[in-house]
Amino acid sequence: MATATEAEAMRRAIALAARALGATSPNPVVGCVLLDPAGRVLGEGFHQRAGQAHAEVNALRDAAARGHAVRGATAVVTLEPCNHTGRTGPCAQALIEAGIARVVYAVADPDPTATGGAATLAAAGVATEGGLLAEEAAEGNAAWLFSVTRGRPQVRWKYAATLDGRSAAADGSSRWITSAASRADVHRLRAEADAVVVGSGTLHADDPQLAVRGIEGAVQPLRVVLDTRATIRPDARVLDDAAPTLVVTGPDADTRHLPGTEVLRLPTRDGRVGIPELLAALYERGVRSVLLEGGPVLAGAFLAAGAVDRVTGYLAPALLGAGPAALAGAGIGSIGEALRLDITEVTRIGPDLRLTAIPKSQAIEEN
Amino acid sequence: MATATEAEAMRRAIALAARALGATSPNPVVGCVLLDPAGRVLGEGFHQRAGQAHAEVNALRDAAARGHAVRGATAVVTLEPCNHTGRTGPCAQALIEAGIARVVYAVADPDPTATGGAATLAAAGVATEGGLLAEEAAEGNAAWLFSVTRGRPQVRWKYAATLDGRSAAADGSSRWITSAASRADVHRLRAEADAVVVGSGTLHADDPQLAVRGIEGAVQPLRVVLDTRATIRPDARVLDDAAPTLVVTGPDADTRHLPGTEVLRLPTRDGRVGIPELLAALYERGVRSVLLEGGPVLAGAFLAAGAVDRVTGYLAPALLGAGPAALAGAGIGSIGEALRLDITEVTRIGPDLRLTAIPKSQAIEEN
Repeated sequence: MATATEAEAMRRAIALAARALGATSPNPVVGCVLLDPAGRVLGEGFHQRAGQAHAEVNALRDAAARGHAVRGATAVVTLEPCNHTGRTGPCAQALIEAGIARVVYAVADPDPTATGGAATLAAAGVATEGGLLAEEAAEGNAAWLFSVTRGRPQVRWKYAATLDGRSAAADGSSRWITSAASRADVHRLRAEADAVVVGSGTLHADDPQLAVRGIEGAVQPLRVVLDTRATIRPDARVLDDAAPTLVVTGPDADTRHLPGTEVLRLPTRDGRVGIPELLAALYERGVRSVLLEGGPVLAGAFLAAGAVDRVTGYLAPALLGAGPAALAGAGIGSIGEALRLDITEVTRIGPDLRLTAIPKSQAIEEN
Repeated sequence: MATATEAEAMRRAIALAARALGATSPNPVVGCVLLDPAGRVLGEGFHQRAGQAHAEVNALRDAAARGHAVRGATAVVTLEPCNHTGRTGPCAQALIEAGIARVVYAVADPDPTATGGAATLAAAGVATEGGLLAEEAAEGNAAWLFSVTRGRPQVRWKYAATLDGRSAAADGSSRWITSAASRADVHRLRAEADAVVVGSGTLHADDPQLAVRGIEGAVQPLRVVLDTRATIRPDARVLDDAAPTLVVTGPDADTRHLPGTEVLRLPTRDGRVGIPELLAALYERGVRSVLLEGGPVLAGAFLAAGAVDRVTGYLAPALLGAGPAALAGAGIGSIGEALRLDITEVTRIGPDLRLTAIPKSQAIEEN
């Protein structure tokens, strides 16, 4: 049984892991705390970026830097230590070599290329225990765990609307429906995502930049523009150098006006880039989480494709009574076909309300 | 200075007053607790229904029934005791005659025909103190306080919608968007209102009954149908005997198919009954609070007339992407003209979210 001290260390490890959300893909976020037999912290660390040291190795280095011996220590880690040799060595081996006596982890590694770490540790005589604060740790790694089992990134649809569901006024004006506090919060969502996706409608209506602003140390997401006929203007803000950008077009789009811009050509369905093909291509590039920023028709297409996994709505305390809705064209005709969700979180953001919801189908699949 | 015991008694008095919400119009709700000099409760009471005894008198009777003498006692009452003789005698006089030594009240009476009670008490040598828990007590009497200063009922617009603001699906189906728990909560809103208002669109689409169901002892609200051309069918559920009904038509409507139904003819504007005229007529009938139950166009007309004073939204965790919006035709063209509100309450009702908001213009006027 894990001790109360180990549970406390796990909470710390989960918090450490969360610091790197949005920076580690295609890897998970992982945190690790090393405890001596009396429960004192010897060292701690987290996986900061793909290609760099894993959490366990960073924790071992931290302990060494503090002058602490770790032989006989306990490693508390948010994810089962990996067993494979990628760009860095397997963590299970590093822990064994360091003389760690006990490993307590939260979530078992579902990645078929990395799993087996616990068995390797046990075979080397290290006591192992899984499942401590598994739910909290899994929530912190939700996008990665989702994507590793589905083979596509987890998609969060973000929208902003008035209480009557309008995302713009009748004349198309939408600046600003929500408060500065909500808009700042969207930058946090972008920082936590590997890619941000918009359609050409939003592109031409709003000319958004889609980069993360105002968050120190944030890793910029890949900006993905769905633009079947490559109608994007070369001076669009989304093509600036604030973050990488990928323009996704149909097979025959003329992209001669976009020299130096990375273009991905995908097959179309009914004149639109296919959502499954898009998500598969992004997964291939290491994208594990996607923030879908609109507009209503693109969101409807994702919804119709069963590719909305999380919904984050910013509701402004305002009424318009006219203007485009936040969501359109999802192919739902009657109340019985409505996409039902569970609201998992409601928070006040300045004068606005932020709510997070998960489609019921997802919730069932995940349980 | 009021004591902690008196504050506790005031909280009790506010709770007692709230029991009669929806039953006392055109009077306010009022609660009263009598304390002896040591702070013990001698009696308590509240105003239960217009035409019946006021709170102070009920509290004096309660003390007598318990065998307690009240000479030298303190009366803790949510509203300044009235000074006028209506269907019942003035409460200030009753308190003086009973030998009450001290009166602590929350909210001063703004009604010009009833005010002056505190002065009358003071002139008779009774110590008086106003303002204790005034904000809580005023909230409990919000509709009455609003209407007495404006000369029209306070209007609460209630709507139910999906997260994307749809009040029905593309095919018009809307049963049920929200949960049974939310629908039960709407019955509470109806019970607290003096009148429930719908337009002929909702009438023909949904054939609602609009009576209060499932709340024991509830006073049924007046059901008001805005039906300029008297298109209501004689067998409409809203015309059943579960509650009184008023059909409001234009001046020339043919109502021969509605024998025995109370009809109010009002001038029209652009083919619709004028909202100010409607509210003035309802006020005249003693209605102090109106629950506006839809549909979107009627809500838009109230909004355009500046006659939405409270908004209660039931948001269902569902997405439709098509179908009528909860609000339409409010005459708002750009984001700068949006009606801005303050969210005052957010509560989970079953799987749904209930939010209450007050237009900013109202909030400013009330401060």
